[in-house]
Amino acid sequence: MNELEILEKFIKPLTEKQPSSLHLTDDACVLDKLSTKQFVVTMDSISENVHFFSGTSPQIIAHKLIATNLSDIAAMAAAPKYYLLSAILPLSIDKKWLHDFSSSLAKLNKEHDILIVGGDTVRHQGPLSLSVTMIGEVDKYNAVTRSGAKENEDVYITGTLGDSAIGLMIQKKQNKFDLSKQAKSFFINRYELPTPRVEIGKKLAKIASSMLDISDGFIQDASHISTNSKVNLDIDINKIPLSDPLKALTLKYESSNIIEIVLSNGDDYELLFTAPEKYEGAINEISLATNTPISKIGKVSAGSDHKVNIRDANGKILKFAKTGYIH
Amino acid sequence: MNELEILEKFIKPLTEKQPSSLHLTDDACVLDKLSTKQFVVTMDSISENVHFFSGTSPQIIAHKLIATNLSDIAAMAAAPKYYLLSAILPLSIDKKWLHDFSSSLAKLNKEHDILIVGGDTVRHQGPLSLSVTMIGEVDKYNAVTRSGAKENEDVYITGTLGDSAIGLMIQKKQNKFDLSKQAKSFFINRYELPTPRVEIGKKLAKIASSMLDISDGFIQDASHISTNSKVNLDIDINKIPLSDPLKALTLKYESSNIIEIVLSNGDDYELLFTAPEKYEGAINEISLATNTPISKIGKVSAGSDHKVNIRDANGKILKFAKTGYIH
Repeated sequence: MNELEILEKFIKPLTEKQPSSLHLTDDACVLDKLSTKQFVVTMDSISENVHFFSGTSPQIIAHKLIATNLSDIAAMAAAPKYYLLSAILPLSIDKKWLHDFSSSLAKLNKEHDILIVGGDTVRHQGPLSLSVTMIGEVDKYNAVTRSGAKENEDVYITGTLGDSAIGLMIQKKQNKFDLSKQAKSFFINRYELPTPRVEIGKKLAKIASSMLDISDGFIQDASHISTNSKVNLDIDINKIPLSDPLKALTLKYESSNIIEIVLSNGDDYELLFTAPEKYEGAINEISLATNTPISKIGKVSAGSDHKVNIRDANGKILKFAKTGYIH
Repeated sequence: MNELEILEKFIKPLTEKQPSSLHLTDDACVLDKLSTKQFVVTMDSISENVHFFSGTSPQIIAHKLIATNLSDIAAMAAAPKYYLLSAILPLSIDKKWLHDFSSSLAKLNKEHDILIVGGDTVRHQGPLSLSVTMIGEVDKYNAVTRSGAKENEDVYITGTLGDSAIGLMIQKKQNKFDLSKQAKSFFINRYELPTPRVEIGKKLAKIASSMLDISDGFIQDASHISTNSKVNLDIDINKIPLSDPLKALTLKYESSNIIEIVLSNGDDYELLFTAPEKYEGAINEISLATNTPISKIGKVSAGSDHKVNIRDANGKILKFAKTGYIH
């Protein structure tokens, strides 16, 4: 199949009844918005053997591609609306793969109320690479950046950290832990099918003072808030939220090893944000409304070094060998 | 160099003094526009060994990447404003390459008054692929699509066709013509450094009834207008504009062979558009103002087959073997 055939058979059917895409018949799509809104735009790419293994199912690849982009939009407190897809496809990709991939996109489009409005398809001799440009909307001047954290505010994180890191270790056959079949599939699932916190992100528009999503590891990503906001973040190691299967590991194995994995590896796609103390009640309500834990894990403090300090129960600063994940 | 280092050293310096990019420190950029405008968004990708040869200079690759995207924005009669860049880089890409590539982007940004506002960088074992999402602005409801051509309107094309096709033949060592060194470098230059017709596109906003850019070959692309507008296009073969070096070839070799190359190959990046007869004067003024030929090459006619008819001096419809270029 050549590029035109792929467009006609697998991509155009996704755009039916979407006037803003011009049904992908034009050189570009035309987008409008209310004058009270701003557009928020992000572009994330995933490549075979870098972000996913060769042979990963098209369903999981589609999920990861859309989820990572949605997570970036959520981190700006925006509502995702439109996306463009560039697919650099190996010659080995067949109709079955394309069918499964585009069916997964259709499902994700419905689930998140997003529309595909454009893109490009290339066939080449090389690995699979997919790029998405995701466009969201946010009320004017309500986008939450990384630079708004202020002294004395609280630091929060959604969901639980580290599950994905263990899932990746299992996939890479680097897992050193004795895990039940059930635990294994929990961790792999968290790695392969991350949950973008879109609903929570939107609800934090007027609450969070700074926000980002954890994609390259907690310590590395948190430092983007401390650096850009010119503050320190003091994180209480005992408040880092762990899933039950991960808690079980900390009881069975050297806990500090586990915590190092939790804080230094990527692919969590949880939202880290800061907020004034007065919003604690509102944040708990968002947690209840979205059925997702949101944990208060530390404080913003003044400090000339603009660092993330991970502290133990006695306030002692802990050191970690790895400070982030480079894909 | 890893992805973060590339971002810091080569991409971030391109965004200085650009508030809308948030200096690439956030998960996404925030874009606003006047309420009288609409956004126009396109995404075009180019890959090594598909759209350019291995070993092509970073300057030429940067030019082609930006030019193809600008051409799509021009074809909507919009003004380009912002772009996001996803770079899937082979491990062999070094600092020298990155420096030359980002310097070329800086030059193009200045020339076209466009800003880089986001993107992504991946290093992988595989060929170079680059995707750009280009965002333009157009006055509300003034975007020109492919579906507005009407009976009795004139058909126009900017510049000259076919130079790029000969340039590509030379590059592929498939050139069968006896060419001077000067002619060779003219054709190669037209292939490697296409001129996006941005100024002309913008000026056609209230004049053209349908428009697109010729990227996959005249006959194939023109048929997108006839199909989407539900009309026929009658093109006078003798009015197809040719550059002087290409005219010289039609005198020296079998002219119909040359014309077939001209009409069936891609990478021209000229604008094909239709307009009511009354705008002929205005169109000639745009041609003068932009110092670029704009040729009237045919008429829009009714017809139930929605085809592009290439006609000779006697009105006879000519047949061509190839009807488009698949990369």
